[in-house]
Amino acid sequence: MGKRSYGIIGTGAIGGYYGACLQKAGFPVHFLLRSDYEQVQKRGLIIQSVKGNFTLPQVNAYADASQMPPCDVVVVALKTTQNHILPKILPKVVKDDSIILVLQNGLGSEEDIAKILKQNCIIGGLCFICSNKVGAGEIHHLDYGKITLAQYQENYSHCGITPQMKAISQDLQTAGIDIELSEDLLLTRWQKLVWNIPYNGLSVVLNAMTNEMMAHSETRKLIEQIMEEVALGATSRNRIISDAFIQSRLQHTEKMKPYRTSMKIDYDLQRPLELDAIFAKPLQMAASAGIELPKIRMLYNQLQFLESQRNLPTEI
Amino acid sequence: MGKRSYGIIGTGAIGGYYGACLQKAGFPVHFLLRSDYEQVQKRGLIIQSVKGNFTLPQVNAYADASQMPPCDVVVVALKTTQNHILPKILPKVVKDDSIILVLQNGLGSEEDIAKILKQNCIIGGLCFICSNKVGAGEIHHLDYGKITLAQYQENYSHCGITPQMKAISQDLQTAGIDIELSEDLLLTRWQKLVWNIPYNGLSVVLNAMTNEMMAHSETRKLIEQIMEEVALGATSRNRIISDAFIQSRLQHTEKMKPYRTSMKIDYDLQRPLELDAIFAKPLQMAASAGIELPKIRMLYNQLQFLESQRNLPTEI
Repeated sequence: MGKRSYGIIGTGAIGGYYGACLQKAGFPVHFLLRSDYEQVQKRGLIIQSVKGNFTLPQVNAYADASQMPPCDVVVVALKTTQNHILPKILPKVVKDDSIILVLQNGLGSEEDIAKILKQNCIIGGLCFICSNKVGAGEIHHLDYGKITLAQYQENYSHCGITPQMKAISQDLQTAGIDIELSEDLLLTRWQKLVWNIPYNGLSVVLNAMTNEMMAHSETRKLIEQIMEEVALGATSRNRIISDAFIQSRLQHTEKMKPYRTSMKIDYDLQRPLELDAIFAKPLQMAASAGIELPKIRMLYNQLQFLESQRNLPTEI
Repeated sequence: MGKRSYGIIGTGAIGGYYGACLQKAGFPVHFLLRSDYEQVQKRGLIIQSVKGNFTLPQVNAYADASQMPPCDVVVVALKTTQNHILPKILPKVVKDDSIILVLQNGLGSEEDIAKILKQNCIIGGLCFICSNKVGAGEIHHLDYGKITLAQYQENYSHCGITPQMKAISQDLQTAGIDIELSEDLLLTRWQKLVWNIPYNGLSVVLNAMTNEMMAHSETRKLIEQIMEEVALGATSRNRIISDAFIQSRLQHTEKMKPYRTSMKIDYDLQRPLELDAIFAKPLQMAASAGIELPKIRMLYNQLQFLESQRNLPTEI
């Protein structure tokens, strides 16, 4: 059997970086693009990485999903704000036995994709990485890079470590990517929200970098309280996040280099914010179990207001 | 008996306007100034008002409180962020029977002044006015102007309508100022906080005018929830604010012309914010009765952060 083929839906900071690593390691990779298609078709991908720079002068680039070959693994690496295009795209690029790997933030993507692709294996991948797209096909990988994999099953019931997870894990490790396997996708997603909800949200509202927020004692306390609310939200589905986990996230962030969160970058660049995946879905899940998260709700409302004042360009 | 004399401590948007109205009506008024002293000494006060423009080419202006004559009524019209200078100033300008009229926002000023002036009658005045200082001695009065008067007594116990309140009320009405009398200073102050806490706070965090916030349904809901928390705070001292009162504040604000709050103006002009009087003191009063106000606490923390990032000029 040859190497598994990978289709990358969304060739940005995440899909571009991991897809390039796979191609460099010898996997057949197909990249779906939109605005960057012509440039990438012409000159490939340029990766500036803390782990070593490299270029891929030629890549399989597509502007139209129906031109792509169906792939063994389809990697969803769009911003969640683009997920409305998935019902059109995904059926064109999957086979019956394609594995779908969802490299997105927040909550709800796997559930939504399972409604589109009822037969396929869906694996969530949580990326702990600092990377930015700095130009068409130009990715700047600043730090970290680990992906935690966990499989989705209806209603987020535990899957354990499946053969499909092991297979993808092996490919990604061959491509030099650090992998962790988790038996519980929902717990893992809520754990990631412990960081994303306070830092992404407050960085926009307070126009601040992580180090500035951590240096202000009242704001550090507020971040901790919001993290505690995230942990409370997780209990809505019987997932337990310990106080030790919260403390480790705070300490980790204090040691990090000054960091502009992804939501702050989106806000500064006038892109839509991932409010649905990072705020609305977690709030809904908690509320459906009768759990209110007042500080997260307030932060969400503030972000909705800020987004409403921006007059974003209409969706193309 | 001649007309009561008035000493105005802080000749800005509030003190300048009301003091000018009193002088125009024939009362002897003495104005304490700092940075505007020379200009006002030279050319007086210029009032542009919706109720009719007028100028007072000559006023009794002072740069030094010890030069002022003791006055029958001493009007404290500083921003609360300047209250640290009151222990030095007030003893110089009061007589044993001076009445102190406190035209300030938020909570706590009367209590603090009572510690400086143990014998004097202290009356709180809550101003419902839109006015700005647009230059040295130049006040722009845009709308409204009513003052609600209520007397302070130790521990905010009810005073009823006192003779001193009636006397001052008569003077102010003679000067064309709309007056309401209240028997309960603490209730009146918490009622004003129902408006000030959400609108002042959110206008800074969200960089917004009142009409923009009211036009966004999620933000309007957030404002209402914060108002409900203010009402909860008032119960810490057994003051009851009804839901009808909250609804009337929302409806009133919807009908108002687009308005930039005083805290937003302070923020935009790089002035210190009145966080202590409008946020910290109410939170303390509620907390001392075991009542937590999570959204107000979060808003306060956010404002503290924003203020901490500004590098204000050091206090002169």
